[in-house]
Amino acid sequence: MKRFVNDPNNFVNEILEGIILANTDKLKWIPERNTIYRADMPRDDKVSIIQGCGAGHDPTPIMCVGQGMLDAACCGGVFASPPIKYCYELFKLMKSKKGVLFPVVNYQGDIMNWTMANELAQADGIKTGMVKVSDDVAVPDSTYSVGRRGVAGNFFVIKTCGAAAEQGASLEELVTLGKKVNSVVRTYGVALTSCTPPAKGQPIFNIADDEIEMGIGIHGEPGRYRTKLKTADEIVDEMLETVTNDLPFKRGDQVALMVNGMGGTPINELYLLYRRAALNCHNRGLKIMRNYIGNYCTSLDMAGCSITLIRLDEEIKRLLAAPAEIPIRVF
Amino acid sequence: MKRFVNDPNNFVNEILEGIILANTDKLKWIPERNTIYRADMPRDDKVSIIQGCGAGHDPTPIMCVGQGMLDAACCGGVFASPPIKYCYELFKLMKSKKGVLFPVVNYQGDIMNWTMANELAQADGIKTGMVKVSDDVAVPDSTYSVGRRGVAGNFFVIKTCGAAAEQGASLEELVTLGKKVNSVVRTYGVALTSCTPPAKGQPIFNIADDEIEMGIGIHGEPGRYRTKLKTADEIVDEMLETVTNDLPFKRGDQVALMVNGMGGTPINELYLLYRRAALNCHNRGLKIMRNYIGNYCTSLDMAGCSITLIRLDEEIKRLLAAPAEIPIRVF
Repeated sequence: MKRFVNDPNNFVNEILEGIILANTDKLKWIPERNTIYRADMPRDDKVSIIQGCGAGHDPTPIMCVGQGMLDAACCGGVFASPPIKYCYELFKLMKSKKGVLFPVVNYQGDIMNWTMANELAQADGIKTGMVKVSDDVAVPDSTYSVGRRGVAGNFFVIKTCGAAAEQGASLEELVTLGKKVNSVVRTYGVALTSCTPPAKGQPIFNIADDEIEMGIGIHGEPGRYRTKLKTADEIVDEMLETVTNDLPFKRGDQVALMVNGMGGTPINELYLLYRRAALNCHNRGLKIMRNYIGNYCTSLDMAGCSITLIRLDEEIKRLLAAPAEIPIRVF
Repeated sequence: MKRFVNDPNNFVNEILEGIILANTDKLKWIPERNTIYRADMPRDDKVSIIQGCGAGHDPTPIMCVGQGMLDAACCGGVFASPPIKYCYELFKLMKSKKGVLFPVVNYQGDIMNWTMANELAQADGIKTGMVKVSDDVAVPDSTYSVGRRGVAGNFFVIKTCGAAAEQGASLEELVTLGKKVNSVVRTYGVALTSCTPPAKGQPIFNIADDEIEMGIGIHGEPGRYRTKLKTADEIVDEMLETVTNDLPFKRGDQVALMVNGMGGTPINELYLLYRRAALNCHNRGLKIMRNYIGNYCTSLDMAGCSITLIRLDEEIKRLLAAPAEIPIRVF
């Protein structure tokens, strides 16, 4: 797969520099630690929210830094957890009297490094709170996770906690909120193609021209099973059947529906998928109060998508509707 | 290339239905004419702005319908101009005492059909004004155009005229504004891969794994020349050299810089390209006042990008900063 790249070793760093050059008024960066943070943070009257994971999932987490979202983020190399030092320094950088919340997507590397960085931060007297994100219903354990993987549902944890933090919530309240949101959000993904890390230069896995991988992970790791290519409607129906049965979502539930692109899928196909997903939810008696259609948690250039449902209550609805701002924008 | 599709004959219609299902409160549609329009339009105290072109360029034009942008849009099949009837009916649907502005991207089919529809509308007593968009500097004439093609610069014509129309501008003022904007915007594109229309099922053109097409058109039509794959920085430098020499843009000019994805290029690569483009502009003494990084005018699933520069004056700056809303959004 061809792509726009210079030296693959600079891939992540040059993306970060692009983000900074496009947002000089609002964001700052620390190139040597793949870190981006809000220029107006930290503040002692607001809990800081930080996240770090492997690169290649943009906009997660680096492009999710902004008012009402993350206050700072770091990433490792492509699909590699950030080193403990990056995470520890991020705690120190965003230290606040009200504390620091760190939602972690559930992968062994991320959990391990954040856990150790957290111990160092706490030893420094920094007040911290962790929320584990584990929304992927595809597999109970995966190549890189003990327990369910954290994928696109992470966006809802960040968005709700980010809004609540702006409104003055305490660290304890945010931990409770984040865990609640994670408990009501479910995601399932599918891949049409592999992804190709720039430094590798080859697809992570091989898949035939008439095959798809159901339940794919966002690092190209296997999902539930491989099958023949189906119609968009058939794929969506199977995904929603899996997602809705899991929580389960029930007739009358208010939900937000996300159709997330994996990086290489054009936006028009995401709307075509959303069409069927919305009709399917209507048939199930689910009330779609908000929708999210675009790239929220990607896997480099993979063609594919995931579908996320979150069950809404009044608090989550209010927080999703609160203003927020990140580098990704149209105007 | 695999993709999410049902019956390829329903590809466009199902995308439109997806947009409508995601925006039931603000948009309406006419399925039989691939038409989407603002539920609160037309109004006799505002000039209506309409556009129609081939499908496959999302968000142009269908996903650009919203406050401060287009009031209505229609499309033909993939890469096919909308029939005269669609265009004519769009004039009638959006008829306003203040008139109807219709920016047309410069392709023979679009110009012909819109010209004929315009004659029919004028015969009905509808006051109309046309702006031809022709920002592509790649080739003087192309497979589908007499004169320069209209590509991603179209976004700036819509955005500025859309904002001015909301602020009460007359039809004559909007025609003048649209022509001015088109006269100061320049775009150049590059393809890494072909695109694949769903009904065709095969790439439009073949390109080797180590080749790129410089000056590509958004329908896969040839550009200036084919060359070996280069680094992202080399590609950007060549694109900006071409774009800046064309107007020309001069040291001290205030500009907006757009890095537009062609559909299959992940957003992180667009930021990597933006990095070099911004640094290049700084070196040329161009002052970047606004930036646009994302998918604005695509070519189905093509991996590729275009770079657009627009020279700003106080009027254009003010109009680009005005509020606007379209289906494509993050939150």
